Amino acid sequence: MPYPYQQSYAQRALKQTNSTAKLLLETMERKKSNLAVSVDVTKTKDFLAIIDVVGPFVCLIKTHIDILEDFKHDLIQHLQDLSVKHDFLIFEDRKFADIGNTVALQYSSGVHKIASWSHITNAHPVPGPSIIAGLSSVGLPLGRGLLLLAEMSTKGSLATGSYTENAVRMARAHRDFVIGFIAQRRMDGVGATAEDAVEDEDFLILTPGVGLDTKGDAMGQQYRTPKEVVLDSGCDVIIVGRGIYGNDPTLIDAIAASAKRYMAEGWAAYLERLSS
Amino acid sequence: MPYPYQQSYAQRALKQTNSTAKLLLETMERKKSNLAVSVDVTKTKDFLAIIDVVGPFVCLIKTHIDILEDFKHDLIQHLQDLSVKHDFLIFEDRKFADIGNTVALQYSSGVHKIASWSHITNAHPVPGPSIIAGLSSVGLPLGRGLLLLAEMSTKGSLATGSYTENAVRMARAHRDFVIGFIAQRRMDGVGATAEDAVEDEDFLILTPGVGLDTKGDAMGQQYRTPKEVVLDSGCDVIIVGRGIYGNDPTLIDAIAASAKRYMAEGWAAYLERLSS
Repeated sequence: MPYPYQQSYAQRALKQTNSTAKLLLETMERKKSNLAVSVDVTKTKDFLAIIDVVGPFVCLIKTHIDILEDFKHDLIQHLQDLSVKHDFLIFEDRKFADIGNTVALQYSSGVHKIASWSHITNAHPVPGPSIIAGLSSVGLPLGRGLLLLAEMSTKGSLATGSYTENAVRMARAHRDFVIGFIAQRRMDGVGATAEDAVEDEDFLILTPGVGLDTKGDAMGQQYRTPKEVVLDSGCDVIIVGRGIYGNDPTLIDAIAASAKRYMAEGWAAYLERLSS
Repeated sequence: MPYPYQQSYAQRALKQTNSTAKLLLETMERKKSNLAVSVDVTKTKDFLAIIDVVGPFVCLIKTHIDILEDFKHDLIQHLQDLSVKHDFLIFEDRKFADIGNTVALQYSSGVHKIASWSHITNAHPVPGPSIIAGLSSVGLPLGRGLLLLAEMSTKGSLATGSYTENAVRMARAHRDFVIGFIAQRRMDGVGATAEDAVEDEDFLILTPGVGLDTKGDAMGQQYRTPKEVVLDSGCDVIIVGRGIYGNDPTLIDAIAASAKRYMAEGWAAYLERLSS
């Protein structure tokens, strides 16, 4: 009997209770892509241009909306139009990390109004379960999904050991809203007690720090290949940033080619996992 | 020989190497206030009104700039004008928690340009030392100061034990930029090895979760009194939010009276600590 994560994305979609988790898996199957592109640029023009180029190759676009210097709210409509045009979901990588009352306001309010447009967002488990309660009070009525940061890909990360186990326990207690993790490996069953029914557990694992051509940067980020991430470690979505769009957003053909390459590598690793 | 933190704020200011740490301690001594007010409202009008009322009683105003729905950049000038008028520092409670490259952009860029106006900001240590490198690359040339979140006041917080020790070690290795902690107790000497010279260590401890009239909220926040925080636990700055301005920002006299009461309680606890 294979683990749930060893089934196809389509089969796994059927068993998800959260509608965003279901939609993401269906999108992955439909587009034959487990690639997310992290668009970390500071100008709206570059942001939209990159998304329009990589859109056909991704299941998910990851944003840091708070680094856009010329953000205006009509950007959101453009982003949503691209999401429909190219059939991808949106993941604002906000890394919420405050008490429940504050994250509820940060998620719903302010200039960026993240909950109104981002299918998925994420949070650090460090404040304890109240952070999930706060975000869920805003996101669950909208059908959104939350990822917890169970691990980080940086050198000297403190998200290890019992921290990671506690993150998974918090997720397990809030499966209506928590759809999975930012992590480097499967988390199904992690930190479970004898009373937990975990044999059908199927968290989505989205994995940053993926690169084909480099092993790290000057600020502590470390990289692994799509094959290491998807086949060896059983992760579901590979997240790639500069490795795809480099430093010149006008090089459309090169960016498209690079996105296509990562998409193909990620999907091949997934197919190999299915058949192994 | 008393510990460094048992000296007066003025004496401690003399020994700080970071200019923001020095300025905060000097301001506390000058205003006879160790009170910070956390202004967690979503409308600019309320935000500025509350700050103008509590300004005379605080050493520091703590902001969540990203919850202001009608934020426009001229707000920053108004905030800075109030900071001069009432002689307080500004602390954007951003709780940065991403990899170095991303936090550098979040701190310097985007709509809010936090580094350009916030004397102090804070970060979770969970990504490892690269988060300090990223923020320091932006903030140190501007003379800013960083607090690490060594502990949290919420139920089920994962910032305990070795996590807290690692946070303090990371701070100890970056004393030019890290001025102290968000914590519930002293951190001097925590996690130190025999090689560390910690006898003169003097981190600033800023403590949220302070309340005179309540013990907690529905979303996991827990409260202690100024006396427990400053006298019993040796913390330096008490952070108070709704306990001071309640739910109606037009009640100016009540808000001023409440701020004055917390300021008096915090200062009395400090004087008792000095004489004990």
